[in-house]
Amino acid sequence: MIDHHAAHPFDQALRLARSTDGAWEGATHPAYANMVGPFGGITAALMLHAVLGDPARLGDPLALTVNFAGPIADGPFRIEASAVRTNRSTQHWSISLSQNGAVATTASAVFAIRRETWSATEATMPAAPAFDTLNRYPGSLIAAWTRHYEMRFARGPMRIEADAPPLDDSVSELWLRDDPPRPLDFAALTALCDVFFPRLMVRRPGRVPAGTVSLSTYFHTDAAGLADQGTGPLFGRAQASHFGLGYHDQSAQLWGAGGRLLATSHQIVYFKG
Amino acid sequence: MIDHHAAHPFDQALRLARSTDGAWEGATHPAYANMVGPFGGITAALMLHAVLGDPARLGDPLALTVNFAGPIADGPFRIEASAVRTNRSTQHWSISLSQNGAVATTASAVFAIRRETWSATEATMPAAPAFDTLNRYPGSLIAAWTRHYEMRFARGPMRIEADAPPLDDSVSELWLRDDPPRPLDFAALTALCDVFFPRLMVRRPGRVPAGTVSLSTYFHTDAAGLADQGTGPLFGRAQASHFGLGYHDQSAQLWGAGGRLLATSHQIVYFKG
Repeated sequence: MIDHHAAHPFDQALRLARSTDGAWEGATHPAYANMVGPFGGITAALMLHAVLGDPARLGDPLALTVNFAGPIADGPFRIEASAVRTNRSTQHWSISLSQNGAVATTASAVFAIRRETWSATEATMPAAPAFDTLNRYPGSLIAAWTRHYEMRFARGPMRIEADAPPLDDSVSELWLRDDPPRPLDFAALTALCDVFFPRLMVRRPGRVPAGTVSLSTYFHTDAAGLADQGTGPLFGRAQASHFGLGYHDQSAQLWGAGGRLLATSHQIVYFKG
Repeated sequence: MIDHHAAHPFDQALRLARSTDGAWEGATHPAYANMVGPFGGITAALMLHAVLGDPARLGDPLALTVNFAGPIADGPFRIEASAVRTNRSTQHWSISLSQNGAVATTASAVFAIRRETWSATEATMPAAPAFDTLNRYPGSLIAAWTRHYEMRFARGPMRIEADAPPLDDSVSELWLRDDPPRPLDFAALTALCDVFFPRLMVRRPGRVPAGTVSLSTYFHTDAAGLADQGTGPLFGRAQASHFGLGYHDQSAQLWGAGGRLLATSHQIVYFKG
């Protein structure tokens, strides 16, 4: 018997049971609730987790795109994941999450067998104050998921107060990890890539409706490389390149111990006003 | 009767005929051939073009992800595009290209009705020499598509010679447009986002096998905004953030007249060695 109370909330939220038709059944978890529906990062992690749990899966995640097509209601959902093409060292997956027969989220994932090659990093980690010297962001009472991440902002904090002054750019730089700390794996890294609030809220504080529409993440390490990270904090940076006509993009980089780039992630975000 | 010889090669390559089952039938075009199979940008443009031609399509393209799952042979192909979810102002599409019943390329597209909002650009166009002052890249004899784009490099040219010295970074900056010039539209912009050679070839010149695995593009303007661009050259910048374990990412920005950011595009690229 599994002791559900002992499991990390993230592992509870990832719990999927395979039904006889091959689909995965799960349910939204209150620890990762957003203002409306679940935190996008937990949904992205679930899409990847369904593939990671499939015995037909080849290699490690290389790329994941998640499209948030419609709202997800609190409660049960089904995830269907199928390998649309398997090559010698890569595998392409198509994934969808539905509730009551309606598709709410679609995704594609590329898995690959990674092999040692020449390596170099051009996106180097910015200089930042040490983790211990920064205050922890207390989290938001209206978005439960923010209290399950430890975020220590070096620059560009979340400022939801409508009277905070606008900034000249949308850059956030912060230390971040799961709370309680949890050994890093691909599902956790996927969710961590989406902890960056919509850049609009950094640049122009205020309570404006905003939400991710499409999210693409590239993984720059393999399972062994992630295991090296353990439970230590990551450092993240996010910035938008353009706001306009109701949408803005944002790009994020996540570095692990020793300034090693673990993932880069890009998204397009709806906003009102 | 359509005069096929009068059409721009890009429009010839985009030609799709709708079959009675709703799928689109097309064929690879020699003008956009790559060393093996077609140029990825023309394939990406075709995936979007199939949706643009569908009477059920809502609004303008906002995001497009294309996964190059397997090789495309010279010859005919079929594209199937279906709207998986239509909301009030957004629509999510799932698209696949197949040959002889085998899926070669998958894609997802988000379309949206764009409305005026607050706007700002953080990714500003780099300073660059004027278009007329730079020499045109002659194109490669072994990749026909390179001769159907006018590329004038300000920085980081393609150097396929194996004895060219390595560089400290993978940045390319260039003026670029269709050749012959063609009024900009979403299909052309999609293809232009993929004209940046694999960053490996800029940083470490040499003939190393490399190819895009997954490509995501975000559009920062609407159809009217693209029409303003006409046939003028765009300015593009591309850079990798990390190379390792057989893959590297790269991010590109494309600016139009007046330094207006038209699209940002990200991809993950396989490489050997």
